[in-house]
Amino acid sequence: MAQQQSGPRTVRAARGTALSTQGWQQEAALRMLSNNLDPEVAEHPEKLVVYGGTGKAARDWRSFDAMVRTLQTLKQDETMLVQSGRPVGVMQTHEWAPRVLIANSNLVGDWANWEEFRRLEALGLTMYGQMTAGSWIYIGTQGILQGTYETFAAVAAKRFNGSLAGTITLTAGLGGMGGAQPLAVTMNDGVAICIDCDPSRIARRIEHRYLDVEAKDLKHALDLAVEARDARKSLSIGLLGNAAELVPALLAMDAPIDIVTDQTSAHDPLAYLPIGVAFEDMAGYAAEKPEEFTRRSREAMAKHVEAMVGFQDKGAEVFDYGNSIRGEAQLAGYGRAFDFPGFVPAYIRPLFCEGKGPFRWAALSGDPADIAKTDQAILDLFPENESLARWIKMAGERVHYQGLPARICWLGYGERDKAGERFNEMVADGTLSAPIVIGRDHLDCGSVASPYRETEAMLDGSDAIADWPLLNAMVNVASGASWVSIHHGGGVGIGRSIHAGQVTVADGTKLAGEKIRRVLTNDPGMGVIRHVDAGYDIAADVAAERGVRVPMREGE
Amino acid sequence: MAQQQSGPRTVRAARGTALSTQGWQQEAALRMLSNNLDPEVAEHPEKLVVYGGTGKAARDWRSFDAMVRTLQTLKQDETMLVQSGRPVGVMQTHEWAPRVLIANSNLVGDWANWEEFRRLEALGLTMYGQMTAGSWIYIGTQGILQGTYETFAAVAAKRFNGSLAGTITLTAGLGGMGGAQPLAVTMNDGVAICIDCDPSRIARRIEHRYLDVEAKDLKHALDLAVEARDARKSLSIGLLGNAAELVPALLAMDAPIDIVTDQTSAHDPLAYLPIGVAFEDMAGYAAEKPEEFTRRSREAMAKHVEAMVGFQDKGAEVFDYGNSIRGEAQLAGYGRAFDFPGFVPAYIRPLFCEGKGPFRWAALSGDPADIAKTDQAILDLFPENESLARWIKMAGERVHYQGLPARICWLGYGERDKAGERFNEMVADGTLSAPIVIGRDHLDCGSVASPYRETEAMLDGSDAIADWPLLNAMVNVASGASWVSIHHGGGVGIGRSIHAGQVTVADGTKLAGEKIRRVLTNDPGMGVIRHVDAGYDIAADVAAERGVRVPMREGE
Ligand SMILES: NC(=O)c1ccc[n+]([C@@H]2O[C@H](COP(=O)([O-])OP(=O)(O)OC[C@H]3O[C@@H](n4cnc5c(N)ncnc54)[C@H](O)[C@@H]3O)[C@@H](O)[C@H]2O)c1
Ligand SMILES: NC(=O)c1ccc[n+]([C@@H]2O[C@H](COP(=O)([O-])OP(=O)(O)OC[C@H]3O[C@@H](n4cnc5c(N)ncnc54)[C@H](O)[C@@H]3O)[C@@H](O)[C@H]2O)c1
Repeated sequence: MAQQQSGPRTVRAARGTALSTQGWQQEAALRMLSNNLDPEVAEHPEKLVVYGGTGKAARDWRSFDAMVRTLQTLKQDETMLVQSGRPVGVMQTHEWAPRVLIANSNLVGDWANWEEFRRLEALGLTMYGQMTAGSWIYIGTQGILQGTYETFAAVAAKRFNGSLAGTITLTAGLGGMGGAQPLAVTMNDGVAICIDCDPSRIARRIEHRYLDVEAKDLKHALDLAVEARDARKSLSIGLLGNAAELVPALLAMDAPIDIVTDQTSAHDPLAYLPIGVAFEDMAGYAAEKPEEFTRRSREAMAKHVEAMVGFQDKGAEVFDYGNSIRGEAQLAGYGRAFDFPGFVPAYIRPLFCEGKGPFRWAALSGDPADIAKTDQAILDLFPENESLARWIKMAGERVHYQGLPARICWLGYGERDKAGERFNEMVADGTLSAPIVIGRDHLDCGSVASPYRETEAMLDGSDAIADWPLLNAMVNVASGASWVSIHHGGGVGIGRSIHAGQVTVADGTKLAGEKIRRVLTNDPGMGVIRHVDAGYDIAADVAAERGVRVPMREGE
Repeated sequence: MAQQQSGPRTVRAARGTALSTQGWQQEAALRMLSNNLDPEVAEHPEKLVVYGGTGKAARDWRSFDAMVRTLQTLKQDETMLVQSGRPVGVMQTHEWAPRVLIANSNLVGDWANWEEFRRLEALGLTMYGQMTAGSWIYIGTQGILQGTYETFAAVAAKRFNGSLAGTITLTAGLGGMGGAQPLAVTMNDGVAICIDCDPSRIARRIEHRYLDVEAKDLKHALDLAVEARDARKSLSIGLLGNAAELVPALLAMDAPIDIVTDQTSAHDPLAYLPIGVAFEDMAGYAAEKPEEFTRRSREAMAKHVEAMVGFQDKGAEVFDYGNSIRGEAQLAGYGRAFDFPGFVPAYIRPLFCEGKGPFRWAALSGDPADIAKTDQAILDLFPENESLARWIKMAGERVHYQGLPARICWLGYGERDKAGERFNEMVADGTLSAPIVIGRDHLDCGSVASPYRETEAMLDGSDAIADWPLLNAMVNVASGASWVSIHHGGGVGIGRSIHAGQVTVADGTKLAGEKIRRVLTNDPGMGVIRHVDAGYDIAADVAAERGVRVPMREGE
């Protein structure tokens, strides 16, 4: 057994094929827990914080040590129970059962608020698990890039025949999340004008090759954009300035914009630059006069949103990208703020109806060659899916691995199980040098109840019904996942979401193959039945075509 | 396949050994669902309401039909998913997996209130599952009687050497729940004075043999009580009147009361009789002047509670029996209302620390002789447990079965699995004429987060942490239970609790024996580890003695 330590240290997943556990299922859990805390992966590894504010992989270092110790001796018919990042039990189960069961940050409804959560956290009784932080399947910023890519691919599919070639997208915000926008647009062969008021953000995105060029001014940006568009070349253009001024200016100029969205930090009025304030003065002003600042930033957002609606009136595709800018503009008195939709109902929900969602995997060998081989396997399996092929190729070229090599792409019902079984065969026949872990984010088609995002504006009004993620977790346990988690409050905060995750290990055994087939059928299957139940025709068609059973529609 | 109907009808579980399904696991689910709607069992079967306000077994009759249809064809490696009383999917799992997974009434935290729940219910999108209503293991009023018996047994164990012989208990409220008190006290060999202001309630309890006699007046009640006590005979005495007057009067008389509690409907001030109001005028007055009535009923409760505290000051054992009378008295301005404890922290939590809780089972044969044999098996297995023996014998004599013959008793960690395995052997060797289903209520030791009742005043302040019931559900799925459920809002209402249930079928097979051993070890094991984690010494002792693994206490 490894020497036990009690405080912060550098953690990194083991590589290669030597096990420090009783089997690959346990080894995978140990490596992925460790990988989440790898300094390349985690934002604040010394505090066990992986990403997303305070999303943690373990409650504290003593709990981390106890989990490592327990995983190292855990048998093939035992299961470790984890309560908000702390191991609280080991029980005898069986071979088909998960090796780890996790419940993070869950609170009874009337107590499900940040205040009570922080109180309990301060007492050492809970931790914030976010989504993949506390369930040990975070893979770094590739996830954000891919999600953004997928959204723009869905825009392309809806309005532009599957490609953004020949279109210009206008957006703002090049921060932690928003910075993925320019690359996501160019990966879809489009042109993007990206406004940010912070010059350092523009410089950083160029340095990391997420953004191609910076324009000198508005006119320069538009000239570059039109030229690239006409040549049907992809190009991303940074533009320094205030979006609340520049977006209306572009509208006034009658700029030929096809798509408009925004990822400034509008959810927090103290982080959105008002009109007439210099970027350098922003932080001081917000701190000194927060109420005045809020009033003025909301006024600016109203102008910004009004211009977005103006572009929509002229025929552009316009959507809210999850930053609440519509709500803030409405607070400032702008009446048409909700004239354009949020991105989930507009683009993501149709994918959810097909059981599509963020399928991801990591190579336990640590060898990038294993991911290259799985990339090729995906291309071979789904040759007809062009957007998928574009992503896989570009990701192979552009994405830097953080921690264990990993890949993410969106696959639907009937696809995920195929990919998973293929990976398992590739482990079995030695094509891959070690097992693969297959998981997903919690914001999948049938695994989340989150009325401000993933389940906003459901057709039948069932936004807040949380039975679905719980059924998702239970059916994953019943199908043979390697570890399963139920979380509360990820993404949108305490009190606002309940969601479940699963990770399944392809260790090349026949049993793993059987488990993978069930888990990767049933898990996206939850997305299909959730949307059939809510009345979506696409989901009903998918269920009928692909044989997903819906008892209420049978035998009547 | 059975003829499908679409509206209310009389439902009753099949009896005997002929199956209308593919196996006993499915048959058990079908029979128990049907049994919950048996007119002998359910309060309003035509509305699918089983008990507890609007606690339902199925969303609507169409959903009921679809569940019956699905269960009749469900294979040994398939699982039906039920979302708030409606079957939403059938998925391929495996032999060790549950045949049914249920999630009822769950809502995202910020939406977890009655208003949103009722809105969704009216849209036909959810139902209230209570605890055993929506998870198909309600067995009628025996459950209440046994819970009340167990509480008084715990009082006896704590203060009176394990028996109430030679003691007098004073209580009030002979309603649906409170009416079990007189019989529970006499089953513990004690004497009870039970006050109610409604003469019809007293008459009904005497008719059903839950109450022995009615006293003419206060003095008569006390004379009867003292006489029985001195003869160490059990006796329950009904006394008509207002508890807010009679309890203080008994205190003023210096009546020799040993135990005081109350189950008037104090949780609802419009249902508690104020002082100076005739019982006949109560309903009209409450309807006409609800605010005045509330003020006066709270004042009366303050007097009532003040007298209870007076008895405690004189040395009596006093407790709140879950009706919020302390809170109401405090609202009326009485400062010492919380001087006496709630029943869970006082008596039930020490049992929870040992993994004890409401173990129940039903005979799928429908033959009472099967229950008689299991009763005997329990007596044989635990000969040293006197309170258990007393209960089993009395229950056999006094309890009328409702629907399928059933029994309930409290068993702890290391006991439930023994009982379950014995039952399975008795099915295998033909001692019993058909399989037995084994389940429990959701208010078990490790299956509920309910800060106003089961997890009130936890030692470490973790009352609202809801990870535990979710882990409980998942580990039951992972251990081989036949059906598993996660509910929200049972007992104390929407927003106030999250809880899980499991039912496991002893069909006499070797596989069922393996599953039973795991489920009935791990399920109460959750209670032990939950209380170890919260810092209870009894739980830590039980874990150490009986080998329950707690990773944080290992290998350091
Ligand atoms: N798709 C989703 O559902 C999703 C996912 C993650 C984040 N978000 C939301 O997207 C927003 C951006 O997230 P982030 O992590 O990138 O935030 P961030 O704070 O890292 O970046 C915000 C950027 O906006 C810029 N900005 C602020 N005011 C501006 C103005 N008036 N004009 C031009 N630029 C301005 C800032 O300089 C900064 O670079 C947040 O509101 C976040 O909640 C949505
Ligand atoms: N142990 C638990 O945790 C638990 C379980 C179930 C119910 N309860 C609580 O116990 C209480 C009783 O439940 P129930 O189902 O029996 O209610 P119920 O309404 O059926 O019966 C209440 C009885 O109290 C009587 N009563 C009202 N005011 C009175 C007064 N001033 N003096 C004398 N009698 C009076 C009524 O006549 C009635 O018979 C409720 O508050 C309920 O919430 C607690």
